[in-house]
Amino acid sequence: MKHTETKVTIAVDAMGGDHGASVVIPSLVRVSQHYTEGFFILYGDEAQIEAQLSEHPSLRSITRVEHCEMAIPMDMKPARALRVGRRVSSMWQAIEAVKAGQAQACLSAGNTGALMAMSKIILRTHAGIERPPIAGLWPTLEGESVVLDVGATIGGTASQYVQFAVMGVAYAKIVLGLDNPRVALLNIGIEDIKGTDSIKHAAELLSSSNLNFIGFIEADAIGRGEADVVVTDGFTGNVAVKAAEGTSRQISAILKISMERSLMARLGFFLARGAFTTLRGKMNPNASNGGMLLGLRGSVIKSHGGVDAEGFAIAAEVAIEVAKADIASVIERDIEAMQTLLDEAWAEEVEG
Amino acid sequence: MKHTETKVTIAVDAMGGDHGASVVIPSLVRVSQHYTEGFFILYGDEAQIEAQLSEHPSLRSITRVEHCEMAIPMDMKPARALRVGRRVSSMWQAIEAVKAGQAQACLSAGNTGALMAMSKIILRTHAGIERPPIAGLWPTLEGESVVLDVGATIGGTASQYVQFAVMGVAYAKIVLGLDNPRVALLNIGIEDIKGTDSIKHAAELLSSSNLNFIGFIEADAIGRGEADVVVTDGFTGNVAVKAAEGTSRQISAILKISMERSLMARLGFFLARGAFTTLRGKMNPNASNGGMLLGLRGSVIKSHGGVDAEGFAIAAEVAIEVAKADIASVIERDIEAMQTLLDEAWAEEVEG
Repeated sequence: MKHTETKVTIAVDAMGGDHGASVVIPSLVRVSQHYTEGFFILYGDEAQIEAQLSEHPSLRSITRVEHCEMAIPMDMKPARALRVGRRVSSMWQAIEAVKAGQAQACLSAGNTGALMAMSKIILRTHAGIERPPIAGLWPTLEGESVVLDVGATIGGTASQYVQFAVMGVAYAKIVLGLDNPRVALLNIGIEDIKGTDSIKHAAELLSSSNLNFIGFIEADAIGRGEADVVVTDGFTGNVAVKAAEGTSRQISAILKISMERSLMARLGFFLARGAFTTLRGKMNPNASNGGMLLGLRGSVIKSHGGVDAEGFAIAAEVAIEVAKADIASVIERDIEAMQTLLDEAWAEEVEG
Repeated sequence: MKHTETKVTIAVDAMGGDHGASVVIPSLVRVSQHYTEGFFILYGDEAQIEAQLSEHPSLRSITRVEHCEMAIPMDMKPARALRVGRRVSSMWQAIEAVKAGQAQACLSAGNTGALMAMSKIILRTHAGIERPPIAGLWPTLEGESVVLDVGATIGGTASQYVQFAVMGVAYAKIVLGLDNPRVALLNIGIEDIKGTDSIKHAAELLSSSNLNFIGFIEADAIGRGEADVVVTDGFTGNVAVKAAEGTSRQISAILKISMERSLMARLGFFLARGAFTTLRGKMNPNASNGGMLLGLRGSVIKSHGGVDAEGFAIAAEVAIEVAKADIASVIERDIEAMQTLLDEAWAEEVEG
């Protein structure tokens, strides 16, 4: 993404995530040190937020606080969150700031289901898009790939896969700077006979589209960078991302334990520390934090709920970049260009 | 598993996998060097097998070759494999050797769907088991966990999850040597509201059973060893295993590249090589090769199709251990003890 000095405003749900304001504020302090083009509106409990903010005058000077009566708990069902959190919750108000044009992106580490539901209701999806998937970035040997949906939602019809492909390609063009991203469907084999009926049907539809569809991809090929955009349902995507992150952390833990076993090993790791810094940079799960909800008439960024200030800062930087590039509008134009494909995929399911 | 000197016979589909006899024979040569209690019957093209065997007299002396007219291709649909491969294929005959009591386990790196279909038809499943899942071993910080189904099959009803849990626990008792294995359902969150209806229903059924059910587990917690048995459908299990394996290989590749960049890094890696050997042993995808098809009246071991001789040897060792412990019979007794739970789960779906 190009770094221009456009001033953008980010609406932040300061109560979201496992740690709320105690992570959000220190995180924005970090971001504000090098991102001078951002302005923040923080939604949440004013007393809590101001207590933290008072210690950071430089952040205070580029921040406005909007008091909200309630925060959506992480384990509340989306339907209930809509009922009790409409208008009054920090999450609702942060999204509404985008709708009202007060902010160019919304950022929350809160309840994923509630964020998806509220975003869809407040911002609405583009024509032909049933629900907003979350697109994440997966570190690869080649750089990064876009994987969607990683949003932990259930289900996946052929037409949804096609929608995800169209949106993922549009997103990859901007965030990865590619002209014609290669798109693949995540499957349990690369043969045509494998997979659910909806995956196989989606493959047929994508083959006849003008997207750069390269077929099926297995989960072990994602990290080799064999596709730029990997399309899957929210359940499978979430499991794949977490299996990869867990393995990465597990390897770090094993190396750490082994390293402490002998002086020789400690010395060895010291000499090779540059390589480990490279590895850490490439495989840091935090570095891929900051998934974007695609297909909405406005930009919403979801951070993992359990991240620390460093992780939330990365999501905040993604939000600023997304806001500056006005990605939601760019994607809307790309979706319009693919409307025939989307309509066809959807109509076949109505018939079927 | 205890190592006794019981002589066991393994029926090997010598044509299975991406490389057939050219991997199978060198692999069995390795195994025969330290496993003196195994005897092999190799099913496949006699000319091909004998050409390889003639170079290895010690393996030749503990091997019988049964010529088979055909091998099932890796990409053939299971229904067609049954039609053209019944009785005449190396896969069919290797499974039938178990049914006939000539061998105590069957080993194949061939077409997974065909192996499942033929095994089910020849050996039959235990009462209350609809289809045989494949149980794999996942390396963890604590040791290993059983994950099932990793068999790349589609679907998952509540009663199937319950069946997988019962079989996985029985398998873990033997292969991990645990008295009361902790069993968890793989999900996209640990809250009760998350997941598909069938996963949520399976959780209710398992909570009221006398299994040591600890609830939901997310994919990043598998590697931390938080459960001994992780239950999921074959699609999700396959994706999770491959995402983890791919990440592990990706980290090795990054370290290898970084290592070659400077003399200092090379020296560092040399000094710390013990730690890398530990890591390689713990995270080697080959080391968890050798998934067992559970719930059948006979033992069938599936190796990955793409493995080298080292990987296939590990699967062969698993087959020998499984045969010696007569795991299929032990699991049958455990399944019988859980029949009430299985019947209840199944009956509810018939009603629903």
